[in-house]
Order: sequence, then C-alpha cells, then structure tokens
Amino acid sequence: MKERLTIVKVGGAVVEDEAQLAQLLRDFAAIEGRKVLVHGGGRKATKMAERLGIETRMVGGRRITDAEMLEVVTMVYGGLVNKQLVARLQAHGINALGLTGADGDVIRSHRRPPRMVDGATVDYGFVGDVDRVSHQTLSHLIEAGIVPVVAPLTHDGDGHVLNTNADTMASETAKALASDYNVTLIFSFEKKGVLRDANDDDSVIPTITRRDFERYKADGTISGGMLPKIENALQAVDAGVGRVVITLATAIDGQHGTVVEKG
Amino acid sequence: MKERLTIVKVGGAVVEDEAQLAQLLRDFAAIEGRKVLVHGGGRKATKMAERLGIETRMVGGRRITDAEMLEVVTMVYGGLVNKQLVARLQAHGINALGLTGADGDVIRSHRRPPRMVDGATVDYGFVGDVDRVSHQTLSHLIEAGIVPVVAPLTHDGDGHVLNTNADTMASETAKALASDYNVTLIFSFEKKGVLRDANDDDSVIPTITRRDFERYKADGTISGGMLPKIENALQAVDAGVGRVVITLATAIDGQHGTVVEKG
Repeated sequence: MKERLTIVKVGGAVVEDEAQLAQLLRDFAAIEGRKVLVHGGGRKATKMAERLGIETRMVGGRRITDAEMLEVVTMVYGGLVNKQLVARLQAHGINALGLTGADGDVIRSHRRPPRMVDGATVDYGFVGDVDRVSHQTLSHLIEAGIVPVVAPLTHDGDGHVLNTNADTMASETAKALASDYNVTLIFSFEKKGVLRDANDDDSVIPTITRRDFERYKADGTISGGMLPKIENALQAVDAGVGRVVITLATAIDGQHGTVVEKG
Repeated sequence: MKERLTIVKVGGAVVEDEAQLAQLLRDFAAIEGRKVLVHGGGRKATKMAERLGIETRMVGGRRITDAEMLEVVTMVYGGLVNKQLVARLQAHGINALGLTGADGDVIRSHRRPPRMVDGATVDYGFVGDVDRVSHQTLSHLIEAGIVPVVAPLTHDGDGHVLNTNADTMASETAKALASDYNVTLIFSFEKKGVLRDANDDDSVIPTITRRDFERYKADGTISGGMLPKIENALQAVDAGVGRVVITLATAIDGQHGTVVEKG
C-alpha cells in the first residue's frame, strides 16, 4: 500500500496576509506524514515590479513575463517568498527545503509559443508550460524527511528560468507523485470551497465528481474562474491523484471544503 | 579512504561579469567528482537596493542589513543569483540544487550582537554568525548526485533568514564536510593568487603554510584584506580541509593560484 502524501497549494493573497499566513503555516506543520507546499506570490511580484517601475500586464489572469519581469518573479518567488516560508517552517520543526523546477531538475518546461487570445496574438514571454516532473528526485527528498516548498518557476534545460502558474505546478507535481504515493491535493483559496450560490459563503458543495461537474456546468451553478480550477482538479483525479480538496486557506485539514473525486 | 570533494566559492564581481561567469560555470562543470558551489552577489544586491531607493551602508567591508536590506539580499542571493546559476549549471548537465542555510536546515546561525568597531558601536542588523553546518544533509544530497549551489543566507531556527558572508559560508561548509570527504576549497577572486608584489600580477606565491604566513605578515609581504582571507584559509586547513586554493575566477582547475596547506 502506498504511503499518504499531502500537497498544499497556497496562493499569493494568503502569502500577503500575515494573519492568514501564520495560521496556514501552523496548520500545514500539523498535517501528519509526508507533505509538500506549493506557493504563489503574484501580489508581491506585482508590488515589487511597481517599486522598480516595471509595468505588470496580465492576459486572462496570466502574467506577461518579459526579461525584466522574469527577474522580478525569480527574485520574489524563488528568493523572498520561498526563503521566508522555508525559514518559518523550520521554526515549526518542519525540515523544509525550497525548490524551483530548476533545482534538482525537478520540473522541466518549454517556453509557451505565442497564441491567439480573443482574436489577438499574445506572447506570454518567459512563461513555461510543464513537460515533466521528476517524481524520483522529489520522492528521494521526501523519503529523507525533507518537506519540499515549491516556488512557481521551472526551467527549460537550456539555462533559462521560466515563470509557471502555481496551480499548474501543484497539479503536475501531484500527478507525478501519484505513482509513488496516495496523494491528497489541497488547493487553498479565499472561499470555503466551491459554492452552490456565489452570494452565500456557506453554500459549499461537499463533493464533486465528473458527472456532477457536467451537470453544474450545464445548469450554470458553476461558472467563470471556477471552471478551469475544477477541470484541473478532475484531470488530476483522472491521472491517479486520490482526491483534490478546494478549501479556505485557514481550513486545510482535509475536513473542510469541496472534495473533487472519481465518480 | 575518503572521496574527493571540491568546493568553489565565487564572488559578486564574477557573478556580475557575463564573460567571466560563463567561463567559471564551464570550468566548474568540468571539475570531476563531487562538488559544491558557494556564491556571493553583493554587487547585484547593491544595485537592486539602489533601484529600490534603499541606501547601502558597509562597515569594514560588511553590509549593514536592516529589515529592508534583508528583503533585498534574500531576493537577490536566494532568488535571482541562485536560480540563474542553478538553471545554467543544469544546461551544462550538472544536477544543481540551490540552497540557503534555511533549506534542509543546513546552516544555522545567530544574529550578530552589536560590537565595537573603531571606537563606535556597530549593529550589523540581520547578519548571522554561523553556529553549525549539517554535513549529514549536505552529504546525503551530494551522494544522491546533487551539486549544492549555496547562497550566502542562513537562518536562526526561529523563522528568520540572516545575511551571512559568502567566504565564511564556504569555509564553514568545507570544515563541516571535511569529516566526510577529502575537501579542496577554492576561493576564486580577481587576482591570480596571493601576490608577493601587489604591483606584479604574476608574482603569485605558490604555497603558503602557517609558518610562511607568519613570516610574510612580519615582513609586510602580505597585508590588508588578504590577511583575514589567509587566516580563514589556514583555519580551514587546521580543521581538516585538505587544501585551500586562492586563485583567479577563470583558473579554478586547482593547478593555478596559491595553495594554502598544512606546514
């Protein structure tokens, strides 16, 4: 039987909010067994870019990453956010070790080619689409008692760091590690879970299967930015991840939120 | 018999100079066997601080690190410089993995208390003096085929990242790993080695023992900033490091420069 592994993804909004972050780190430290933290940091990157006089441009929620912005995200994600999280987890007695995809060659990607978005060609710049995750290297670290803390950066194998979406990093890492572990992937965000009624924060849908999703999509219960999030979660489940939980950043114990699972 | 391990320290001036850095990375990649790279990045940190409107203050060559400057060095050393080095070494086929002292709890330090310098009390701020290096964790990574790339940051175990001198990181790492390996420590810098005549770049002293050092110190051959560098090297040798080489950044093959060794 495979050992349990919990992967928690925490976004930039929580990283920015000291009270939420402190609780998330305590809760993460309390999770038993093997675990991985995947973090964002977009808000800090946007603030740092602003201080440096660099304009932030987003298309469909994704950052356009030119050479200057790549320096900013490399510093902020790989340095500022990652090292502060690692040092604070160490203080909780967690043997954290920060990684980007370049470190130990754990996540390799290729630069995203320009593509059509809403009728216009968009070049995202130094943005990486994941090609493969080295589950062997990650498993080796995890079995040595290490808790990987993963920043949303990858590399192309030709010497270039690339900016990669943190949700994607988390789900690709979960899928790759599903060959070695019974993986629970927890996406923490600012809502209690997937809501039946966007105006009622307590209307959390407890469980979603592929069949439920198609129904909720058809009747309009689920729409907008939640659609790709759940599609992503269902693909992870299809690829062998035990379950995916979408929950509040201050409720990552696996007992709260929406569970996305095999039908 | 212990396996050989080569530790190369590269300073901020080389990290800034693309031609020198490219050659250093090629030469480092060509070193056979187990190895570790320790880097600085002070010049990039000073430039980034300037862009952010943060004043750089140095006392005796050491950076005063207040809370704002700590953010800058955490970003620049742990993120920008470290991740670019890691990605570029990966392109050379080297399985590099970036570490600060916080990662894997490899180097723990305490905040340096204020001290008297030239008659005035100086508070260096968030600067860490090394307490211990976990050679077990480093050796475990090295034996797994990983090449650690170490940024000059440590942590105090209470959740704080601390700024630590890169030369000190290199010599403390070398001393700790001397229990597991036959270590050669190479300090690369802008001169060909320790010079007999400061005005003659080719007057490299090939070998220095403790007894030679005392003599050169007494007769004034060696003075200024080279004194602590060699004292540091001799202490490493006394602590079990096989040999320490002080050499040009573009000549790290161990065949050039000044060898500091046991008398």
